[in-house]
Formats: sequence, structure tokens, C-alpha cells
Amino acid sequence: MQCWIISIGDELLIGDTINTNASWMAQLLSEYGVEVERIVTLKDDLSVLKETISDALDSVDLVISTGGLGPTHDDVTKTAVTDLFDTELIVHEPTLSFIKKTFKKRNIPFSKSNHLQAKVPADSEVLFNEQGTAPGLWLEKNNSILVVLPGVPYEMKHLMQKKVLPKLRKLLNGNVVRKARYLLTSGIGESTLSDEVVGDLSSYFNENISVAYLPSTQGTRIRVRARGSSEEDVENKMRPVIEHLKKSAGEYIVGEGKDLHLAKVLGELMTEKNLTMATAESCTGGLLGSKVTDIPGSSRYMKGGIIAYANEVKVKELDVEAEDLQKYGAVSKVVALQMAKGIAQKMGADIGVSTTGIAGPEGGTREKPVGTVWIGFWNRDQHFAIKGEFTKDRWVNKERSVFVALEMVRRILLNISEMPYGLQKQTV
Amino acid sequence: MQCWIISIGDELLIGDTINTNASWMAQLLSEYGVEVERIVTLKDDLSVLKETISDALDSVDLVISTGGLGPTHDDVTKTAVTDLFDTELIVHEPTLSFIKKTFKKRNIPFSKSNHLQAKVPADSEVLFNEQGTAPGLWLEKNNSILVVLPGVPYEMKHLMQKKVLPKLRKLLNGNVVRKARYLLTSGIGESTLSDEVVGDLSSYFNENISVAYLPSTQGTRIRVRARGSSEEDVENKMRPVIEHLKKSAGEYIVGEGKDLHLAKVLGELMTEKNLTMATAESCTGGLLGSKVTDIPGSSRYMKGGIIAYANEVKVKELDVEAEDLQKYGAVSKVVALQMAKGIAQKMGADIGVSTTGIAGPEGGTREKPVGTVWIGFWNRDQHFAIKGEFTKDRWVNKERSVFVALEMVRRILLNISEMPYGLQKQTV
Repeated sequence: MQCWIISIGDELLIGDTINTNASWMAQLLSEYGVEVERIVTLKDDLSVLKETISDALDSVDLVISTGGLGPTHDDVTKTAVTDLFDTELIVHEPTLSFIKKTFKKRNIPFSKSNHLQAKVPADSEVLFNEQGTAPGLWLEKNNSILVVLPGVPYEMKHLMQKKVLPKLRKLLNGNVVRKARYLLTSGIGESTLSDEVVGDLSSYFNENISVAYLPSTQGTRIRVRARGSSEEDVENKMRPVIEHLKKSAGEYIVGEGKDLHLAKVLGELMTEKNLTMATAESCTGGLLGSKVTDIPGSSRYMKGGIIAYANEVKVKELDVEAEDLQKYGAVSKVVALQMAKGIAQKMGADIGVSTTGIAGPEGGTREKPVGTVWIGFWNRDQHFAIKGEFTKDRWVNKERSVFVALEMVRRILLNISEMPYGLQKQTV
Repeated sequence: MQCWIISIGDELLIGDTINTNASWMAQLLSEYGVEVERIVTLKDDLSVLKETISDALDSVDLVISTGGLGPTHDDVTKTAVTDLFDTELIVHEPTLSFIKKTFKKRNIPFSKSNHLQAKVPADSEVLFNEQGTAPGLWLEKNNSILVVLPGVPYEMKHLMQKKVLPKLRKLLNGNVVRKARYLLTSGIGESTLSDEVVGDLSSYFNENISVAYLPSTQGTRIRVRARGSSEEDVENKMRPVIEHLKKSAGEYIVGEGKDLHLAKVLGELMTEKNLTMATAESCTGGLLGSKVTDIPGSSRYMKGGIIAYANEVKVKELDVEAEDLQKYGAVSKVVALQMAKGIAQKMGADIGVSTTGIAGPEGGTREKPVGTVWIGFWNRDQHFAIKGEFTKDRWVNKERSVFVALEMVRRILLNISEMPYGLQKQTV
């Protein structure tokens, strides 16, 4: 099955919004063996929409659009579909009553433009949207399928997973089986991983199997894809490659899964070992705590943290020595060490993690340029800090610090002595 | 001038890479008054490329492609261009010697496929690439321009800024002037804003002026675009609409600017009023602190915060009454109020902000479903909490809580009595 994705919205064409929806859908569809042939981003313009959707339906079996379903005058996707399918808009009662209920709960007056949200083309199957006011639509014409989804990412994702994929799965049955497996690695650069650790994989490759390295903020994901005549056949084809990867890159592999998060794996380890942690953050300003608590159930092991932005907070709340702050500066090994120990003791946690660095864009010096970050660790057995030298970008520096910190803790919990990116443990 | 951006590469169609190149270019081009009409993402397929580039050159004045310039067999962009312009590939000597020098420096053997990198279509102007081995190309045909750039983001950006824009600027001179202004609103729904607050704007509209509502996590941005014969002419055309918007939506408008962030505006207000703040976070787990400290210079007004995930931390660090925790639960007005006051006093800050809620997916009850979040505020004059009822999605709930909290503080600082989304201030 071949597919075009059509992303609709002026905000995408002036660069205000990055089109993450299209990538997310493309990845999911690829996994199910749907080949995404083209992604087209268009403005909210009736004639352009009609022309492109029509062109798409002539070219491929499946067309999925997102966006342009809002209540304002510049949202014209539904009009385009109604025109193209030569039908009319009718009220979809379940959606109407759901919208009314939602508005009542939130105490928002129900206006005329909201009424329009509940209207759908007469020939469409409604994909009921429990997460928002714009329902999805499924239409068929000359053997091609048009799926119309809202542009709000979590609504689109909900409808893709709960409504669109189950229907597609039925249609795809009986075809070639395709599968992908993902191994997440962390704390090692992509080229070191591929060239020095994993090495040459070409002897495993043929038209039915492929491997790709996909870098991300958390670390590099290794994707193994294969196709075959059955689930079992595909698994058998993948096994030797997966075994090679696990054998060669073992310690760097955080776990398996496409959407696997380092914080999730860390949480599982913390739970398994019945340990608790606490965070003391300066340059990351709360981002480390936020990533840890992005994981449902993190309250089992996350006691809490202190965002010690001001130096007085470091002294008063984390027992950092005022004298050392003066002598070594807030961005120093000594302060990172004291912060990690201070937070663990204060919160009664088994593990304390700290960050202190120069996020930028200002504040760098020749000795401590922007991007210099100290990450501290304390537990009953170990007390050390590692020093990262990251980028000039404030936001990248915050993210990198957080993921290096998470990977540092993961390695400690697994008794892996090497620290992320080969950084050296430095003690008092 | 109207433009299509063509992004080339299989990795974009399987969702491995998010197309940030296209957004970056679209934003830059929009600023220069170039209207990006369409972004098309295609695979490395010769016939598809030829067809789409040809189509693009027929439709608009400017076509920019990125990607497909590498040395491997699946990179076919140069072949497509050579075919379309009915020309041939010739060696570009300066590029060839630059590549050879680069390889020598890096100690990499110079292979035949690298030689191909230095070949360009005979009719093209070479945009010399100091950052990599694939040069950019500038070609013209029937009054339309085709710019061919590499897909590596920093190479593309370098060539856009140093080579493409200076050439475009000359062409754009003396043409129609186009401008866009953006007003960021917060704490009000898109449809309420457009239907009830701003009202009908159609009397202002004509072919030279348009208004769009662009929703985002922070709030709705209102974009006003106009074109005219001079900067002054454009400003004059925009003025009545901007005045209408400011008059009708005044209190909801956070400020003006395309990339304006609520946290930035809040930071300016805090600095101006010489105030300090501190945060006490339960359900947002550090995200509020992180957003506040995303702003360079936030150390001037952000003292720090406590991530009080465990109840014992709420009691010990924030002086929440254990009895009240027991009686009302952690997600309650009483606890939110105590957290806000507790953190302000502990950190010696003028303002304390707290969040406590059920982020989900687990932990909801009939009385307190997932998405219930209390946001507390304390300063010397006011002490209250507001109750949000958000979504079923953990991550969305964290984000919403943070932006409602930031907007709440902004409104207090400006003596605006209405709280975000009309939520009621609740006191002890």
C-alpha cells in the first residue's frame, strides 16, 4: 500500500511550526509496511487543497491529511473534501453532544463556529475523537482511501492509533510481513558506535534485511528492519543481526523499543532495585526532574528535587559551602559534588544527582566556556562528578546535561564502570 | 515572490528525520517577503524528482531543493537537474581542489565517488560550499530560479545565509513589500477569542491584508499580513486591524513578536518590577522551573524551586500540614495554597507558584479525574488557587499546567483580575 501525507496549515509554511506530525505518521505507517511516497505541506487554500487531494487519490491507495479542521474561517479542509466527493455537510449528533458536554464542563460558551465542528461530509465514516472537538473522517473513492485528521498532535496520534491503524491492519492482512526492531543506545557517539563498537554488518544484509543508525537527543537508536512470509520468518531473519548488535554494543544498549525513553528504563531499574533518587539542578533548571517525572509511576522512586538557581539557595538548601562557591565558582566539580550529596541527604534518597553549568548564551569565560557542565553523583558507595563540554546553544546544553545525567545513573545501577562518552569520574 | 521548497531523501519519508530544514528555510524566506506556497518531501527517485521540479518551476518564481547531493548511488538530484535543463555535468575545479584538500587534512583517501561531488551542471552558477563537499547550485529557466542545496542542516544554512539570500535580496529590491506582525495571546480559547472577543474583521480584509489565528501550546497567536508599495504603506494598511485587535483583545495579548515566549514576557515584567519568584511543583515535576529558566538572564528573578513529588517532601520542605494532606489529598486547593506560600517563604521570594495535580494516565478518581490540576499563587497581597481540568494525556497536562501558571502570574503582575480561561480564584 502506498500513501501520501498532506499536511495543511499556514503555520507550517511560514516555518512557525515544525512538521513533526508528518514524521510521526510516516514512521508508524512504514512499520506497518505502508510506503509513504510523498509528504506535501499546503496552505489553507481551498483550490490548492482540492487539486492536491484529488491528485493524491489518483496516485496512491491511501491519502492522509492533517489540519485545517478548526472552527475559524481559514480552516477549509472539510469544504475541500465535501466538494471533491460531491456531497454535503451534515451534523454528526454524537460529536455535537460531546462538544456541548466538553464546553459545559469547561464553562465555555457554545458558539456558532463550534457547531460547525460537529458537521461532517455525508459520505464519510466518522472517526470519533474523544480528545478534541474535530472528528476524524474516513472516505473511499475509486479504491482509494482518504483519511482526514485534525492537526493537533495528540488528537491526531490518538485517532491514528485507535481508529485508523485497526482499519488499515484489516486491509493489509495477507500481504508480506514487515517488521522493525529498535535498540536504543546512549552515551556513545553515532560514528564510534557504528565504526568501532558494532563494526561491519554488511555480511548480514540482503534485500530482505537492513540496519540504520538513527541519532536523537537521548542517544542513537539502531533500527533493524526485515520482511518475510510470516512473523516467524521475519524473526528468524532478524535474529543473527540482533545477536551481533547485543554482543558488540551490549553495555551501550539501554533497551529495545521504538519509543523507549532512557528515563523509563532508569525508572524500571530504580523500581527493581527498590531505590529512590532526588535531583539538585542549577543549569538544567528543573528539566532533569521533569524528564524523570515524565514517566507514569515515577512517584515510586522520585522523591523530589531542588532547583537551586540562586547561589544562596545552593548554600541554604543544599549545604554547599559558601567558601567553596566563592573559591571555585558555582560551575565547578566541588559544587557539583556537594549538591549531589546535599540533595540525597536532604530528601532521604539513596541517590543524589546534580547539574551545574553555563547554559549560555552569556556567562562564559575562557576557562569555563558556554557549554561547560558539571554533573554530580552521590550514593552510599560512590561520590563523583563528570564534566561535559557541550554546545553554544542554551537549550541543547540543558537537554544534553539531562540525558548524560540519566545515562550516568543507569550505568551506575548496572555496575558499568565506563561513564557516558568516556567522561572521567572525578572525585574530591 | 512565491516559492516551493522541495526536500529530498528517503529518511524523511520513513519518519527517521524530522524535516527541520524546511521549517527553517520557510521562516527565513517569509521574513524576506518570499511566500512559501508549498513544501514537498520526495524520495530519491529520478522520475519523481524531475516531474516535481518541473512542475514547481512552472508554478512559482523560486524553487529551492535540499538533499540528494551525496556521493552514493541513491543521490540523484544532480542528474534530475542536468536532465531537466538539458545540459551535462562538468568538473568545477575550485570545488575539486577544496575537496581534495579537505580529505587530505582528515587523512581520508580520495575515491572516485568523491570526484563526482565536484561535478556540476554546465549551465549552473556554483554556490561554493566552505562547509562541506557538495556545492550549492543556482540555475535559471523561463524567469524561474532553481536553487539546489545539500541536505546537511549546517551546510544548507550556511549556503542560504551567505550565498542565496544576498542574491535574492537584489532580486526582491523594488518589488512589493510584504510584512507580517504577530500578537501572542494566552489563557483564552481560539474560538472564544475570534468569535466573542475580536469579532468580525472582514470589513478590513482585501487582497492586500489578511489575519489568521495560529494555535500553539502557549496560546493563540494572531498573525496580520499585508503587502504594499513601501514599508510605510504596509504599516498604514496594518494599523487599523492591529488597533482593533489591541482594543478588543488587549488584556489577552501577551506581546508582539513571531517567536515571543510567555516566559520571556513574564521575565521582563519580573525584572521591570524588580520582583523574584520561586516554584513548588508536584505534577509538573520541574517543567515549570525549566520553562522559566529557558530564558537567558532568568537568574535575575528566579530564585529556584522545589520539586515536591513525594508527600513527605511537601510536608518537610514546603510546610504543608500533614493533617491537611490526609484530609484533602495532595491534589487539593488547600495543599496548592500551602505549597505556594511555603516556597515563597522558604526561598525568600516575592512570588510563590505551585502545581499539584493528577497528570495521568493512572491515579484518577471520579471526583478527581486525570487532568485535574490545582495551581497556587502567593504574594504579600494575594493568596489563591485556580483549578484546571485538562486532558487525559500526561504530557499535555504538564504543559498546560505550566502555561496556565505562567499566564496567571503575568495577569497578577499587570493587575488583570480575570484568570486564564476564566478560572475562578479560590481562597482558603
